[in-house]
Amino acid sequence: MTLSVFTDEYFMKEALKEALKASDLDEIPIGAVVVSKGRIIARAHNLTEQLHDVTAHAEMLAITAAANFLSGKYLEGCTLFVTLEPCVMCAGAIHHAHFECIVWAADDEKRGFNTYNSSILHPKTTFSKGLMAEESRQLLQEFFRKKR
Amino acid sequence: MTLSVFTDEYFMKEALKEALKASDLDEIPIGAVVVSKGRIIARAHNLTEQLHDVTAHAEMLAITAAANFLSGKYLEGCTLFVTLEPCVMCAGAIHHAHFECIVWAADDEKRGFNTYNSSILHPKTTFSKGLMAEESRQLLQEFFRKKR
Repeated sequence: MTLSVFTDEYFMKEALKEALKASDLDEIPIGAVVVSKGRIIARAHNLTEQLHDVTAHAEMLAITAAANFLSGKYLEGCTLFVTLEPCVMCAGAIHHAHFECIVWAADDEKRGFNTYNSSILHPKTTFSKGLMAEESRQLLQEFFRKKR
Repeated sequence: MTLSVFTDEYFMKEALKEALKASDLDEIPIGAVVVSKGRIIARAHNLTEQLHDVTAHAEMLAITAAANFLSGKYLEGCTLFVTLEPCVMCAGAIHHAHFECIVWAADDEKRGFNTYNSSILHPKTTFSKGLMAEESRQLLQEFFRKKR
């Protein structure tokens, strides 16, 4: 990432704010932001219920929005911050988009792409995980607790 | 699939017609249709260049359109006909959508989901492949030959 006054924690907090918006809509609370040159160029949250669309994960919506912002389909040099480990669908999209880096908070041990094959990501894409994982997990646990 | 006057070959031909539409737009020629109760409820072709969006694969657009038609995000009882083996992203979406069956024409040995992990599909989703594979391959080869 280029020089930025913002930290990774700042961007992950923004992704968590997106997750909160999803929660307010009774959607599973997952949020994402796309950062280019130290700026957020796209933000999105899970909208699968609102849109009746299984493809409307936070990451997918953020990728589409970021590509729209940049007027190009490749997101080279961009970093995706997402509050939960991407599923296979989203990891596939992340591969296609040529992200420079992915940062996710909590692991998804059931549906995370790493469960299937960690090489789904593009070999040039770096990733890190665990940043604010506890906050993300609490948000998810609270959501599912209320559902019961 | 329920009783239908149409054959699988008829539906794959319709998917190939979609692929031709993509080709006419200078998009990689891949097409898909979603069939419910013997009727086509959604049809789509690859639009990644037109939309500047790596997520705009034929399957993804067809899934969104079919869910919109049915006003529900799950496509249980539906069959997806697609002219090329789905990539990981699309296979992940197919999993989420709970398709009953997937039929694809040509294998994609480089990017097909089977290269990564064949269990990406939902365990209840059946699949078959090879139907009109030669027609699909010819369309793709012709497209890439012109590109050179």
